[in-house]
Amino acid sequence: MLRTLVRLFLSGAALAIACSGAAAQTAGDDDAQRKADLVTAYRILVNEGILDSFGHVSVRSSKDPNIFFMPRAMPPALVALDDLMELRVADSQPVDPKGRRVNGERYIHGEIYKARPDVMAVIHAHSQAVIPLSLTAIRMKPVIAQAGFLPPETPTFDTRAVRKPGDRGMQVTDSARGAALARSLASYPVALMRGHGEVVVGSSVKQAVVYAAYVDINARMQMQALLLSRDIVTLDAPELFTPEEFDINRPWEHLKQKMLDDAARAKVDRAQFGLDQTQAKR
Amino acid sequence: MLRTLVRLFLSGAALAIACSGAAAQTAGDDDAQRKADLVTAYRILVNEGILDSFGHVSVRSSKDPNIFFMPRAMPPALVALDDLMELRVADSQPVDPKGRRVNGERYIHGEIYKARPDVMAVIHAHSQAVIPLSLTAIRMKPVIAQAGFLPPETPTFDTRAVRKPGDRGMQVTDSARGAALARSLASYPVALMRGHGEVVVGSSVKQAVVYAAYVDINARMQMQALLLSRDIVTLDAPELFTPEEFDINRPWEHLKQKMLDDAARAKVDRAQFGLDQTQAKR
Amino acid sequence: MLRTLVRLFLSGAALAIACSGAAAQTAGDDDAQRKADLVTAYRILVNEGILDSFGHVSVRSSKDPNIFFMPRAMPPALVALDDLMELRVADSQPVDPKGRRVNGERYIHGEIYKARPDVMAVIHAHSQAVIPLSLTAIRMKPVIAQAGFLPPETPTFDTRAVRKPGDRGMQVTDSARGAALARSLASYPVALMRGHGEVVVGSSVKQAVVYAAYVDINARMQMQALLLSRDIVTLDAPELFTPEEFDINRPWEHLKQKMLDDAARAKVDRAQFGLDQTQAKR
Amino acid sequence: MLRTLVRLFLSGAALAIACSGAAAQTAGDDDAQRKADLVTAYRILVNEGILDSFGHVSVRSSKDPNIFFMPRAMPPALVALDDLMELRVADSQPVDPKGRRVNGERYIHGEIYKARPDVMAVIHAHSQAVIPLSLTAIRMKPVIAQAGFLPPETPTFDTRAVRKPGDRGMQVTDSARGAALARSLASYPVALMRGHGEVVVGSSVKQAVVYAAYVDINARMQMQALLLSRDIVTLDAPELFTPEEFDINRPWEHLKQKMLDDAARAKVDRAQFGLDQTQAKR
Repeated sequence: MLRTLVRLFLSGAALAIACSGAAAQTAGDDDAQRKADLVTAYRILVNEGILDSFGHVSVRSSKDPNIFFMPRAMPPALVALDDLMELRVADSQPVDPKGRRVNGERYIHGEIYKARPDVMAVIHAHSQAVIPLSLTAIRMKPVIAQAGFLPPETPTFDTRAVRKPGDRGMQVTDSARGAALARSLASYPVALMRGHGEVVVGSSVKQAVVYAAYVDINARMQMQALLLSRDIVTLDAPELFTPEEFDINRPWEHLKQKMLDDAARAKVDRAQFGLDQTQAKR
Repeated sequence: MLRTLVRLFLSGAALAIACSGAAAQTAGDDDAQRKADLVTAYRILVNEGILDSFGHVSVRSSKDPNIFFMPRAMPPALVALDDLMELRVADSQPVDPKGRRVNGERYIHGEIYKARPDVMAVIHAHSQAVIPLSLTAIRMKPVIAQAGFLPPETPTFDTRAVRKPGDRGMQVTDSARGAALARSLASYPVALMRGHGEVVVGSSVKQAVVYAAYVDINARMQMQALLLSRDIVTLDAPELFTPEEFDINRPWEHLKQKMLDDAARAKVDRAQFGLDQTQAKR
Repeated sequence: MLRTLVRLFLSGAALAIACSGAAAQTAGDDDAQRKADLVTAYRILVNEGILDSFGHVSVRSSKDPNIFFMPRAMPPALVALDDLMELRVADSQPVDPKGRRVNGERYIHGEIYKARPDVMAVIHAHSQAVIPLSLTAIRMKPVIAQAGFLPPETPTFDTRAVRKPGDRGMQVTDSARGAALARSLASYPVALMRGHGEVVVGSSVKQAVVYAAYVDINARMQMQALLLSRDIVTLDAPELFTPEEFDINRPWEHLKQKMLDDAARAKVDRAQFGLDQTQAKR
Repeated sequence: MLRTLVRLFLSGAALAIACSGAAAQTAGDDDAQRKADLVTAYRILVNEGILDSFGHVSVRSSKDPNIFFMPRAMPPALVALDDLMELRVADSQPVDPKGRRVNGERYIHGEIYKARPDVMAVIHAHSQAVIPLSLTAIRMKPVIAQAGFLPPETPTFDTRAVRKPGDRGMQVTDSARGAALARSLASYPVALMRGHGEVVVGSSVKQAVVYAAYVDINARMQMQALLLSRDIVTLDAPELFTPEEFDINRPWEHLKQKMLDDAARAKVDRAQFGLDQTQAKR
């Protein structure tokens, strides 16, 4: 029993060290920091219900713009630093797979990095907050004060638009579909994907995460308002904002705090049952 | 106090052993594994809110296709291995009741196994995600990428269609109603039941559980989209998939992980209060 | 620290004893059992979100049909055995207040017990699941299999119907309003109250609690279906059931189990912070 | 490990002392009590989901009506007593910033205190329960018994109404916008803010918090009812109430109890991970 207790608190101590380590590096923006933010992003987005069984997040290397980091094919809830693989922007292929299975939809990320030099992070999620809108001819429009980063109309990408005879499925599993999605996204931070979810991009992992969280809220607010009235007020030009006009650190800290509280509970429970990450992943 | 603490951690250890034991057998598909998956299925479906006070899951024997396993009449949240009974496909009657009360709606399972040799697992749930649709003339259609296993229109079964004079209730408590439900289900993986819930079947417990989870999400997405517009996009033929095109292991692992986290919390609490399964079941 | 730990587990042990004590008396139906069920009912209904800051539950005495038990005016989440007061059916006044503040809406209970000798338990709740329906001319109708105890149309009571010049408020704070509500309820198990909530009555505390839980689900299912289509299927005569046709023990056990799991978490937390019920109530 | 355990329980003990200390002062209404209520208000409103990454609460000084207290710019979930700053009603500027960053929307508070001598507390929140209504021409009306404090129609403020050429954004970041919002609020306890949220004011922190909680419930009930029917019943004159007719202590205690239970869980977790408030705030 004592061993279990010791283990429980040691694992807590280890995480605390990991977290304070991450904190110490916040000022920098090297690849170590980008990867740490990527892991945090996974935890936040799972905790917010934006990532579920599927979905993935990537970050471009700070040292080489032709490289991006993305986890192997695995459940989002379990992503850790050593699951990250290095992929090439040019063809979305791994530099060295080391025997690990690469994600089938990595072309979403590679083709967006190729088309958008300004983008440093890409999120693809199956968010249930945006899917209903994506099934209709209605376009997502900015309606809440914090969604001023959205374009007047967010595009909805549909794989059918580029489907060739014999093509199957709705997933973005080759460069052609990835490039088509990147064209839909254009210079925007968000594109919905019909019946599937969304992509959200940012100049940093933090920005993409905060944008993804507000995309969800904006979509729900717009949908609920549309049920009440077809005549709703959307943001106009002076209400849209540039990245410099919106401090993402506050919502990032808020989202991280919520995640840490919730994750702590789950970890303690897992430890008490003798389950650790390795077993869970088997 | 020490005894309580010891008990708390011993029960945790026991579950950990049970879980790793189950893991060791994953490769196989014998009856021990099928029964273990059945118990896990109950926990996942309760955790997802798909099973509540009622609902049941069964699995066909790997040794004898004329036999299936199903728990005695009891709250789904408490089902354990030793609650499973052996029933005959021929008449939905127990091989040997051993004094235990058999489930009143076992005919759902028996008649589907009789009509569908391909089916190895049957779920009947009272899911609140599908009931509203089942009350209308609208049919569930596949709208999300992961619901490509659905037929273009999911049938809604209504006991009234086979009700004889003097018949009462909406439950499927005899072979005639079970056979009628199986006819509605036809060769599909899902049928809704008007005002009642759904049946979901699969070639394995895992497949049926994953399908049931996506039935819920698909129904909610379709309903929300229909409130926005009567003209919504549903999956077309090249977007529907065969079982081989959809890896159920990822969502199964995701759902199990969520369940283990949540269950751990509840168990620890229960143990601290001196309540164990036996007492809870009284 | 050890003292805190000891206290934590002792309080757990005390509850376990209380619970097993309650279990031992389940067979009987004396006032001790009725009061124990009443306290359990409060915990279940708070846990289900049916009771919030307000709302109350009462039970008629098994020894004297002219007496009922109901807690003093207090937050529902904190009700314990020694908060129960004895009130007269005749005038809804306490037999002996012992300095405790009596509930302002006790007339709901007194007048229903007076009009309905078959009723042994009364629940008044401000359930957010039924309030939207109560604001419209739409009547709640049974749509789910487990709501076969509902009448074809559930009445919605409105205090305005009996409001006299100078009367204020919507609460049932005198015998006249209580009697009017009892007349609306007629021989039914449920009446909605416009903009306010509902009353649910039963032949036992357990029955009233299970009915209240299904009233919530039925209302949500009916409302969601009505948004999809104005033409929905409701239960017909052979689908309505008598109390003998519906085993309430299964849902009662399910609801209690959920409550015990959740309550355990909260109590442990509270104990760890040195807060106990007495302090919380101040 | 022992140190961690000791720390865990010491922090629990400290909170218990803080809470009982607060309790001892309940009778009074000095600045110490007002500030303690303000911190409690933050915790309750975060716990209810009314405050998220943004939003703020203030209280007027009991000693000097020209001064109000409000936290520095920070995530609402982390506000503690020593984060409170002293601001002037006259110009919404801090008496002595002590190097801390002041909140950008403090003009909401200052201008309302200036226009409304009766107001002792101001809440500004981005509540997702009211935003959909605020996007339409529909006005919030009182529909539930506990919302009798609302005017027959709650105003919706829109910054556009006072926007000057070159003005950007929707935030209330100067005295002119603050004064315009105060004019919209008029003598009411609530005003919605288009696409943004709401302000709720009260004669005490407790009253404003309880009102804010019922604003949320009322908005959700009204919206859900409007989806069912455009013809809904709203409270009429004899159903609206004065502050004296509504005991806010019961809902305040209920909300605080819920918050303490939930907060306890999170704190224990945080402590076990070696994270304390200071680290979290970095």
